Amino acid sequence: MIVKMRRTASADDIQAVEQRLHELGYQTGKLVGTEITLIGVYGDISALPQGEIFEMAGVEELIPISRAYKRAAQKGDIINPIYTSFPIGNVVVGGSDLVVVAGPCSVESEVQIMESAQMVKEAGCSVLRGGVVKYRSSPYSGWEGLGADSVEDLRQALHYIVKAGKEFGLPTAVEILDHTMVSEYEDAGVDCLQIGEPNSRNTSLLNRLRDTSLPVIHKRGTSLDSEAYLLWVERMMTKGKENIILCERGVMSANRYTRNTLDLGSVAAFHYHLSHLPIAVDASHGTGVRDLVHPLTLASVFAGASVLLVEAHPNPLIAKSDGFQGLFPEQLSRLVTAAEATWKLRTELEPLYTPSAVLEKAYDQRVAEDRKRLFG
Amino acid sequence: MIVKMRRTASADDIQAVEQRLHELGYQTGKLVGTEITLIGVYGDISALPQGEIFEMAGVEELIPISRAYKRAAQKGDIINPIYTSFPIGNVVVGGSDLVVVAGPCSVESEVQIMESAQMVKEAGCSVLRGGVVKYRSSPYSGWEGLGADSVEDLRQALHYIVKAGKEFGLPTAVEILDHTMVSEYEDAGVDCLQIGEPNSRNTSLLNRLRDTSLPVIHKRGTSLDSEAYLLWVERMMTKGKENIILCERGVMSANRYTRNTLDLGSVAAFHYHLSHLPIAVDASHGTGVRDLVHPLTLASVFAGASVLLVEAHPNPLIAKSDGFQGLFPEQLSRLVTAAEATWKLRTELEPLYTPSAVLEKAYDQRVAEDRKRLFG
Amino acid sequence: MIVKMRRTASADDIQAVEQRLHELGYQTGKLVGTEITLIGVYGDISALPQGEIFEMAGVEELIPISRAYKRAAQKGDIINPIYTSFPIGNVVVGGSDLVVVAGPCSVESEVQIMESAQMVKEAGCSVLRGGVVKYRSSPYSGWEGLGADSVEDLRQALHYIVKAGKEFGLPTAVEILDHTMVSEYEDAGVDCLQIGEPNSRNTSLLNRLRDTSLPVIHKRGTSLDSEAYLLWVERMMTKGKENIILCERGVMSANRYTRNTLDLGSVAAFHYHLSHLPIAVDASHGTGVRDLVHPLTLASVFAGASVLLVEAHPNPLIAKSDGFQGLFPEQLSRLVTAAEATWKLRTELEPLYTPSAVLEKAYDQRVAEDRKRLFG
Amino acid sequence: MIVKMRRTASADDIQAVEQRLHELGYQTGKLVGTEITLIGVYGDISALPQGEIFEMAGVEELIPISRAYKRAAQKGDIINPIYTSFPIGNVVVGGSDLVVVAGPCSVESEVQIMESAQMVKEAGCSVLRGGVVKYRSSPYSGWEGLGADSVEDLRQALHYIVKAGKEFGLPTAVEILDHTMVSEYEDAGVDCLQIGEPNSRNTSLLNRLRDTSLPVIHKRGTSLDSEAYLLWVERMMTKGKENIILCERGVMSANRYTRNTLDLGSVAAFHYHLSHLPIAVDASHGTGVRDLVHPLTLASVFAGASVLLVEAHPNPLIAKSDGFQGLFPEQLSRLVTAAEATWKLRTELEPLYTPSAVLEKAYDQRVAEDRKRLFG
Repeated sequence: MIVKMRRTASADDIQAVEQRLHELGYQTGKLVGTEITLIGVYGDISALPQGEIFEMAGVEELIPISRAYKRAAQKGDIINPIYTSFPIGNVVVGGSDLVVVAGPCSVESEVQIMESAQMVKEAGCSVLRGGVVKYRSSPYSGWEGLGADSVEDLRQALHYIVKAGKEFGLPTAVEILDHTMVSEYEDAGVDCLQIGEPNSRNTSLLNRLRDTSLPVIHKRGTSLDSEAYLLWVERMMTKGKENIILCERGVMSANRYTRNTLDLGSVAAFHYHLSHLPIAVDASHGTGVRDLVHPLTLASVFAGASVLLVEAHPNPLIAKSDGFQGLFPEQLSRLVTAAEATWKLRTELEPLYTPSAVLEKAYDQRVAEDRKRLFG
Repeated sequence: MIVKMRRTASADDIQAVEQRLHELGYQTGKLVGTEITLIGVYGDISALPQGEIFEMAGVEELIPISRAYKRAAQKGDIINPIYTSFPIGNVVVGGSDLVVVAGPCSVESEVQIMESAQMVKEAGCSVLRGGVVKYRSSPYSGWEGLGADSVEDLRQALHYIVKAGKEFGLPTAVEILDHTMVSEYEDAGVDCLQIGEPNSRNTSLLNRLRDTSLPVIHKRGTSLDSEAYLLWVERMMTKGKENIILCERGVMSANRYTRNTLDLGSVAAFHYHLSHLPIAVDASHGTGVRDLVHPLTLASVFAGASVLLVEAHPNPLIAKSDGFQGLFPEQLSRLVTAAEATWKLRTELEPLYTPSAVLEKAYDQRVAEDRKRLFG
Repeated sequence: MIVKMRRTASADDIQAVEQRLHELGYQTGKLVGTEITLIGVYGDISALPQGEIFEMAGVEELIPISRAYKRAAQKGDIINPIYTSFPIGNVVVGGSDLVVVAGPCSVESEVQIMESAQMVKEAGCSVLRGGVVKYRSSPYSGWEGLGADSVEDLRQALHYIVKAGKEFGLPTAVEILDHTMVSEYEDAGVDCLQIGEPNSRNTSLLNRLRDTSLPVIHKRGTSLDSEAYLLWVERMMTKGKENIILCERGVMSANRYTRNTLDLGSVAAFHYHLSHLPIAVDASHGTGVRDLVHPLTLASVFAGASVLLVEAHPNPLIAKSDGFQGLFPEQLSRLVTAAEATWKLRTELEPLYTPSAVLEKAYDQRVAEDRKRLFG
Repeated sequence: MIVKMRRTASADDIQAVEQRLHELGYQTGKLVGTEITLIGVYGDISALPQGEIFEMAGVEELIPISRAYKRAAQKGDIINPIYTSFPIGNVVVGGSDLVVVAGPCSVESEVQIMESAQMVKEAGCSVLRGGVVKYRSSPYSGWEGLGADSVEDLRQALHYIVKAGKEFGLPTAVEILDHTMVSEYEDAGVDCLQIGEPNSRNTSLLNRLRDTSLPVIHKRGTSLDSEAYLLWVERMMTKGKENIILCERGVMSANRYTRNTLDLGSVAAFHYHLSHLPIAVDASHGTGVRDLVHPLTLASVFAGASVLLVEAHPNPLIAKSDGFQGLFPEQLSRLVTAAEATWKLRTELEPLYTPSAVLEKAYDQRVAEDRKRLFG
């Protein structure tokens, strides 16, 4: 951590801060500029009384140096990363198998979700998804989900999807929008909760989910930097919760042709640099174009995803919501076949990935001779 | 095309427009609203005198319906696309082989580019890249490329890279920034020109490149929608030029962690929907992080890229520009091995990709029965 | 509304749709293309059974033509707009007076909010603002607001600000994050609720606020197009609620220097084109730089704002949150003086604003002669 | 400047760097972290041989602390800024008068630009603008400007606008796209050159403009951060050129309703914090909506603009390019009247603007007592 002193801080102010840090057992360094002074505080600062230091005379700001998202951050190091795995029902995410979470945008009827479950199972997917409350961008879209109007409706809709999942041996993942309904989802037997993109920074919901034992898929907001997003993920983890799946589903950019801009660079950053949590990609929302879901889903696997979210419907032409991006059953089935093959290849090719840290020292030692040889 | 009439247009105005269109041999339709009238013009409008129609009384706007980038647009149809292939030197792009274009950010010395060519060749790449004029974001960065200061320097730098390419049997691709220098590049024996991102909409340059027979890699600007970008590509094609490679190297978004946001959704859109031209991806600029180049390059292959641009250097720690994103030689070599394997798999999996148009009619005919069964 | 038929629709399908629309009492038009047919439906479609039409064979999509946000949309027309005004406590917004809503980012203590109220009153502002629950981007920021930890704390914090407001005759505006707490705010005597940017699309909260009689300031999300935002505003209005204040506080863009990019073009679009609701601008969050709040606040007045949100603190150097953007008391006071002068001038200059609709017909009638004179 | 050492740097490497800096006459500071060491270099580093230091063993990066755009940066300080003023023809920009630059998007005929000049003069504007080469987003737009096809055409078109300017005593500002044509503009008697947004980073053009004595309006690119933009401006200033006008005309954001998102926050940042150069705002391109030009232009004045770019046409309904955003003559005239009144008020209100630096010390000295009083 760096303590930035104000331009107006006196030498006494600076000395007092250093002394207090030493009393607290910290080593410090100092960079005295012509205008401002920075005091570096070394080591693990998790027990440092930051408020007290911040309130000392002349202190302007405490600047964190290590990543602010401690629990979401990578465990191990870049050369030997340690990844987290945990179950959704009886399906393990973050492990050696690719996990495909598929289903319709929303649960539309008992028959529809049952047929969807069959389609999902036959295609070879592992988890059934389906929304029970589907608020749309317009309040006049008509369809807001089977469970939107009352708690009784919500229970009914949850019951349908859980039953369909059980019938075909599929754990279920369902979006939750209201923090007061968590126990309804738990009681209904849902296996995984999902935070939708519009609620990516809904603190009431994030705070409440600290306390559920269910795994959570947390979708990144379209205006969030990847590290800013990890801070919102971190909010759910402050009490120890670890079974969270990061989810990229597109950000806002200059692009108009696709519904959103799927940010696979951040997916690679999450997996290879920033976090120990499993990463999901939702190419259905990420493109909003049915025919682009296939190539983008396969690309996601190589970018670092181990969980794939795919919308599909027994007949997407009559889907009550987002049918334009839902796959036809044949497309889902072929996509899963292809995704499994890409996953297998990624696993085989993994030894070829070589972090720079493995090579850097050797090249640094060659710098002088390389300069001489190349530049004379 | 749709002719949108002004709110103030009279019935006579509307009738006059329809009559003129009929005289010109076009069929029309009409949508008469309470406020405005739209006149639809059917068929191939390439010979329609648009200026004349636009100037008629009461006409507000001519709205194109078919894509405005005719020459860059997909040939064939979504089910049976026809793709274009052409050579860079003796290397075919857009064909059955993956093409990796690799090399340092800039040509730094005769020895450096010679060693780079050897590295590129040994890694199994097909084309050597290297900049000779490398203007940077800051005018004070110091290094602006070996060929920046005079025409003589430019010739020298071009000579170095062409010679290195010849020595190792590699065609060369070099960025061009100044439309008056095209013949210098041609005369020096460069095999492919590249338009950098900052010049993506430099009309003097685009207009001049209409007349070169050399293939051109045209990088998309960071603030351009994918279809807006195709219109700038189209500018080079109006006289018949077809040997152009689209290139995605990242757009602007909320993301800060990577240097740019690599838009692989647009890559898939270009390849599967929008264009017959080969697509390149530059994951080096697209991420700006050396260790993310590997996963993003592999992901690009599945998104639809057939050309890969990769920066690498004999020792990136001493590169004069953009060393932080240049691969170490071992990384380049392993990446090419992995990329070839992903390309092979993509080719094998291609039959599984099923455009919706193949299935749509059958599902449309089932709509009534599916509705009844699913929703009662 | 336009009914877009599928490419696969038969002539019978099309005729059936037209016939049903006529039975329902609607006039239609038709645009028959080589690939698809569009059926235009004229007049007020608010009673049209859209679901029934959508489910007819061959129908692909219903495309709204008039604005989808009916209740938030402009009343009157561009030449003679009708604006809505309503009270916050005893202060009228959307009327002839400029309204400045000011106060600290958060209520930090009973003394602090009392001194803040005095500062706000003395500066000449009309409404006191202050947050009682201030979740930050990082869960480790320490300070989450005086009312964050329990309902009792929330009540206490609300009591402090309401009391301070009463002491100085200022109505109060307080952000609400949790839909289950609305009645707490109402019972405490808060005069206006505010939806923060992270909750701009929190449907549980928006749905709940349909039922409060308190006015609501609804902040636009950083990734929302201006019309997309109005659809989220519309959600609160579907049961008749009208006392809503639009609020621009910055969107996401390429810009990094300011915290957000204040979109005053949308403010003008809201006020002059799109909506009858009063518009607020929050230049404190919109810039995130204390010294830029003054010029941007004045600019907002001319862009169309009639409500100004400004953060200020008795001593921003010790503010527990967002102190870097809070004004010093002297700055607030001078800003209000300047803002009143700009408001007065805007009111005087308003007759000079001339919508094109006033002039368009005359210029359209001159088109032929102007063409002849200018272009020969 | 900070010298960041590599993780692999040895103690000897670090000491060698410090020693060399001391030999060169610099004072240094050091911040020794557990992983990396930073060496601070104090004072004016303009003569420091950065390349030499960068090439020393163990050095990873040189991080500039002071602003990288030295010549474009603010002169004086925040409390007492020093601004630059210079003439366009006989009109002074950056001085005590507001300057309105108005005219049609493009010179369409001798008569049209003559009538435009009269309109501009009668409206009370100071400078006449008009494009002679107007490449559009689509190569098929038809109209590419009167001067697009040959050097002879260019001369003719430049002659028309210069003649029109002279006739009405108006200096002229014309966009230049091709660096080889600068002398044509100079010889024709144009008074000010303009770099359009697509060429904002066209280095050939920027480098060439270092050598012209004509003032230049440099439009900011839509994907450029405000400080990144200043670095491109700086490129023109490295040889001493100072008569440059910054120009904001909208950036890319989530907003769709306006053509671009006018970033008035950056305008304020340029004027009050970052630069001594005059700032122009082009609300015509910044909104792309004729009826929003009026409010946004007035807002720009308060944000910090002293130059206003406005498109207008004798009859915008027949303009060959961008007519939808060109003002009718009556609108231009009324806008100028309003803009002069806002400028007058801004000048009167300027004493109320109070930079924080004026107040900061006093508040910092009160911190302890304020804390005690407010928080107990």
